[in-house]
Amino acid sequence: MTGRIRVTRGEIVESEHRVHAVVHGSDGPELVWGDAAFPTTLRSAAKLFQALPLVEDGVADALSMSDSELALCCASHNTETAHVEGARAILARVGLDEGALACGPHRPLHPAAARRLDRDAASPSAVHNNCSGKHAGMLALAVYHGWETEGYHRPGHPVQCRMRTEVARWSDLDPEDIPVGIDGCGIPCYGVPLGRVARAFQRFGAGESEGATRLLDAIGRAPFMIGGTGRLCSKLPEVTEGRIVAKVGAEGVYGAVIRDSGFGVAVKVEDGSRRAVEPALMAVLSSLGALSASELSELEAFCAPDVTNTRGEVVGEIGFVDAGRPAGVVVAAGQGGA
Amino acid sequence: MTGRIRVTRGEIVESEHRVHAVVHGSDGPELVWGDAAFPTTLRSAAKLFQALPLVEDGVADALSMSDSELALCCASHNTETAHVEGARAILARVGLDEGALACGPHRPLHPAAARRLDRDAASPSAVHNNCSGKHAGMLALAVYHGWETEGYHRPGHPVQCRMRTEVARWSDLDPEDIPVGIDGCGIPCYGVPLGRVARAFQRFGAGESEGATRLLDAIGRAPFMIGGTGRLCSKLPEVTEGRIVAKVGAEGVYGAVIRDSGFGVAVKVEDGSRRAVEPALMAVLSSLGALSASELSELEAFCAPDVTNTRGEVVGEIGFVDAGRPAGVVVAAGQGGA
Repeated sequence: MTGRIRVTRGEIVESEHRVHAVVHGSDGPELVWGDAAFPTTLRSAAKLFQALPLVEDGVADALSMSDSELALCCASHNTETAHVEGARAILARVGLDEGALACGPHRPLHPAAARRLDRDAASPSAVHNNCSGKHAGMLALAVYHGWETEGYHRPGHPVQCRMRTEVARWSDLDPEDIPVGIDGCGIPCYGVPLGRVARAFQRFGAGESEGATRLLDAIGRAPFMIGGTGRLCSKLPEVTEGRIVAKVGAEGVYGAVIRDSGFGVAVKVEDGSRRAVEPALMAVLSSLGALSASELSELEAFCAPDVTNTRGEVVGEIGFVDAGRPAGVVVAAGQGGA
Repeated sequence: MTGRIRVTRGEIVESEHRVHAVVHGSDGPELVWGDAAFPTTLRSAAKLFQALPLVEDGVADALSMSDSELALCCASHNTETAHVEGARAILARVGLDEGALACGPHRPLHPAAARRLDRDAASPSAVHNNCSGKHAGMLALAVYHGWETEGYHRPGHPVQCRMRTEVARWSDLDPEDIPVGIDGCGIPCYGVPLGRVARAFQRFGAGESEGATRLLDAIGRAPFMIGGTGRLCSKLPEVTEGRIVAKVGAEGVYGAVIRDSGFGVAVKVEDGSRRAVEPALMAVLSSLGALSASELSELEAFCAPDVTNTRGEVVGEIGFVDAGRPAGVVVAAGQGGA
């Protein structure tokens, strides 16, 4: 049975999202909702695995990369000032500028950052892409290895071959068995069964790679850099002091490492909805008892976010329901108004 | 069995949306996908019913409202110039200005309209809300009847009581049995079983109200005003020369009248996704044979829209699949790149 995220509006259950989730411990799956074999496009939830070569190959040491810079290489960031400056700083250290970035422009995810660009009458460029830290890291990897930087985003380039190998390594799959698509930022992305995603995050947190441990530590010390203001990817390591590190991916994906208990978590919203994936991850973490009462209280807005309207009124709620009642069921009828 | 809208990315089926749909003829349902009892929040798909009092009560004649203005009162518009000026013109005719509008501001749906506001360093205001035509019509109704204009958006106001009665009339329900929420623009919205929605659209097109026929004719003659550039609500009556009139609602809702065959159509995407509702409506219209080959060809982009990325590359497709294979199934693995 899948988990369900329900959207209510006044007296009505308006919409519902189906959620697949797997929690993997060191001995195997501990919790499964829906289909553990669901082939999940990792999208940006792959970024921890994609940043690892920077540490393991020696790039991070050679460039004296800070915790903030390592966290930025794992980020789907808000395009806040520190994120943009961080990506530029990494590029400058390998003799490049933002013109080398292959990711396309998009309006910043953070409303204040978007308004700042509007006010300056500036168009977004590649460095404003939420993946610009990852791309800067990939370019640094290419320069370090003496690979061409041109075309670093393409499937056949050594950078992307290395990324595919890394995803296969942690998912325990043959690279040739991993189906590929092209991500929003232009690099390949990977389809991995959801249970393998959970296992990949579990192994990543289990200490078998010193590089992985260093990356998780870096995110714990610089949580702002992996997302930004108001983002669950930043709030979770901030509130738990690095005990939980999590990474969102587009199309309703989350991966997480619970470092003290050794669990790996993977969540996929079947319809790809962004609004459902944060309440879904919070529901998994709650059901595991992975958060203290005070931590849960600090993260409450992510568990059951309000639905607001253009007048700024709260008109509904998005929240987890474990099972049973289908969407479209009336909460309470005949009240004559909301 | 629900219909399915599938999102593919390269070799991977990435996400899937479940679709409920009902087609109602004069003698009853002709096609049902999923659950005909699904209580569907009408949202903006109620706008035809909400505009009808303007015609039936005599407001349209008293104010000499044009086809364009009547279509605008039914619109979820793009905030293009004609939409904004049209809403202002209706308000001016009843001695009001946009300060009377209760709808909240939001960024225009049409990218060019949004960029124009950005360039002018202007913030959106109430008249830019996609519902400003409907709100202008509601204010005109209030002035015509001598009702207070203040608070016209609230559930207990005579304007909104009239709207609820109108939705109940066409849905063949007791107003007290219709659950209520508050819409994105601040007025009440209504939960109606999906089959009743289809029946309401069927009856609206069946000629039992001269006012309804006049509204449908107006939309057929001024299709731009009900949506705008690139919008299916405008393209359908434009391409079919008014034979099909359709109205989208937020959270994955569509209602439509097929005027020549006398069918009413209602579609609800279970998870509320906007990207799925247009391919879903097109799949219903196709399965009914309601569109000629040349009309279908003109509307092809709505049947299976491309997924593009920030680099402007086509990286996937959104399309209808009738049943069977669940989301997450690999299309073709091991091709070594996309």
